[in-house]
Amino acid sequence: MTLTYDMARACVAAAMAKAFEIGIAATIVVLDGGGHVKSLARMDGAWLGSIDVAMKKAKTSVLFEMETQAIWEFSKPEAQAHGLESTNGGLVTFAGGIPLKSSGGTLLGALGVSGGQVAQDLAIAEAGVAACNF
Amino acid sequence: MTLTYDMARACVAAAMAKAFEIGIAATIVVLDGGGHVKSLARMDGAWLGSIDVAMKKAKTSVLFEMETQAIWEFSKPEAQAHGLESTNGGLVTFAGGIPLKSSGGTLLGALGVSGGQVAQDLAIAEAGVAACNF
Amino acid sequence: MTLTYDMARACVAAAMAKAFEIGIAATIVVLDGGGHVKSLARMDGAWLGSIDVAMKKAKTSVLFEMETQAIWEFSKPEAQAHGLESTNGGLVTFAGGIPLKSSGGTLLGALGVSGGQVAQDLAIAEAGVAACNF
Amino acid sequence: MTLTYDMARACVAAAMAKAFEIGIAATIVVLDGGGHVKSLARMDGAWLGSIDVAMKKAKTSVLFEMETQAIWEFSKPEAQAHGLESTNGGLVTFAGGIPLKSSGGTLLGALGVSGGQVAQDLAIAEAGVAACNF
Repeated sequence: MTLTYDMARACVAAAMAKAFEIGIAATIVVLDGGGHVKSLARMDGAWLGSIDVAMKKAKTSVLFEMETQAIWEFSKPEAQAHGLESTNGGLVTFAGGIPLKSSGGTLLGALGVSGGQVAQDLAIAEAGVAACNF
Repeated sequence: MTLTYDMARACVAAAMAKAFEIGIAATIVVLDGGGHVKSLARMDGAWLGSIDVAMKKAKTSVLFEMETQAIWEFSKPEAQAHGLESTNGGLVTFAGGIPLKSSGGTLLGALGVSGGQVAQDLAIAEAGVAACNF
Repeated sequence: MTLTYDMARACVAAAMAKAFEIGIAATIVVLDGGGHVKSLARMDGAWLGSIDVAMKKAKTSVLFEMETQAIWEFSKPEAQAHGLESTNGGLVTFAGGIPLKSSGGTLLGALGVSGGQVAQDLAIAEAGVAACNF
Repeated sequence: MTLTYDMARACVAAAMAKAFEIGIAATIVVLDGGGHVKSLARMDGAWLGSIDVAMKKAKTSVLFEMETQAIWEFSKPEAQAHGLESTNGGLVTFAGGIPLKSSGGTLLGALGVSGGQVAQDLAIAEAGVAACNF
């Protein structure tokens, strides 16, 4: 099973609907399992800076197959893999990146969101992922 | 007047419809007038390499406000601005990038397409731009 | 409304006048709303290193539409978006970058200053922005 | 003798006046003898792509202490230093970059212009240099 464009677009559209609902202008991106972009939308009013943050969140979730904030637990100062965030061209280790997996657990890609407060980005990302029916 | 997400998405969707019609899997991207991505779609089966080509085509059209192949006329060997394509992080100077302008001639952004033969990329891009009602 | 060269130059000149007044040699730059330079001045005696710092301050204020030091509040260690400064090719999160907005709140660009103590850079930047009559 | 900001600004202003006179919107930049920017102006309507081209023209003239088009004579295919333009992060080898030298021949910096046809860029650059009284 691989991520199709229709799946990716459905994730982005669902995330965008959530962002509208809570009044946030965000960039939303879905990457495939190789970390290459499938679908991206930058909503009107989203900071220009949100493009790179959303891309790096999604990339981070592809690279380590977990939600971005989970990586912080072992990359933060004093943790075992301190400084990990400076590898791979720069990781983002706060919430808003979520891996997309098949029901069998295979990595299909990831969704990244940036534009609001971190808790808002996470809510938008979770709404996007919930709409992906793999 | 500035490019909205809805405009950008409509351009991408129209280009994608043309690509389906002629049987080409492409990456299609719309950038705003500052060269920042608004909407991107990579169709199933499109080469991974098409992402960067489509992005650079659209960027080239934003940077010089003309279709990509028009730049070749003055950047090619022996032409007055020979080697121009190595500036700005690398231009693409064959067809597939088209600037988006308002009816008054203001630059709003650009559309870039990559995935097929160059003439096919151009046909897809032209179909996308034709659907943009500024 | 978009930022004109005359506006940008007026901002730079006013900032430069303030810098002279307080005896600081600085680099002062104005970027447009897409993050592209419109006007730049490096005063005699300003550190060479001030060029990149001023550029990154202005870019940071374009990318997130706020003063640079405001970003530190949520990008610093323990804050919600810790590490944000390593995105977008590197942000600067201390004072000296200020977004330029129309009276209606539209982002027109940003001004960045580097060369003195941070409080001095901020004072210079504020003097520049105050002279911009949008 | 070193290039002062006032000299650099005078060169840029004179070049800008020439550009207005011939109806071209250009980016005009003056670098010092170390290749670091002193003064830059992007006129309203100048292509975004002109920023990097003007910078690279001026840089090229600092790096080899000659006008940009003169470098093409020995960097072009079949010439002795073929491919030289791909060194130093990319040179521009068509007209529009002119070194600034003291009456004694010391390199003080360079002026770069981009925005029009190459002959126009050269005319603008020459007008700028003519106004610099070292």
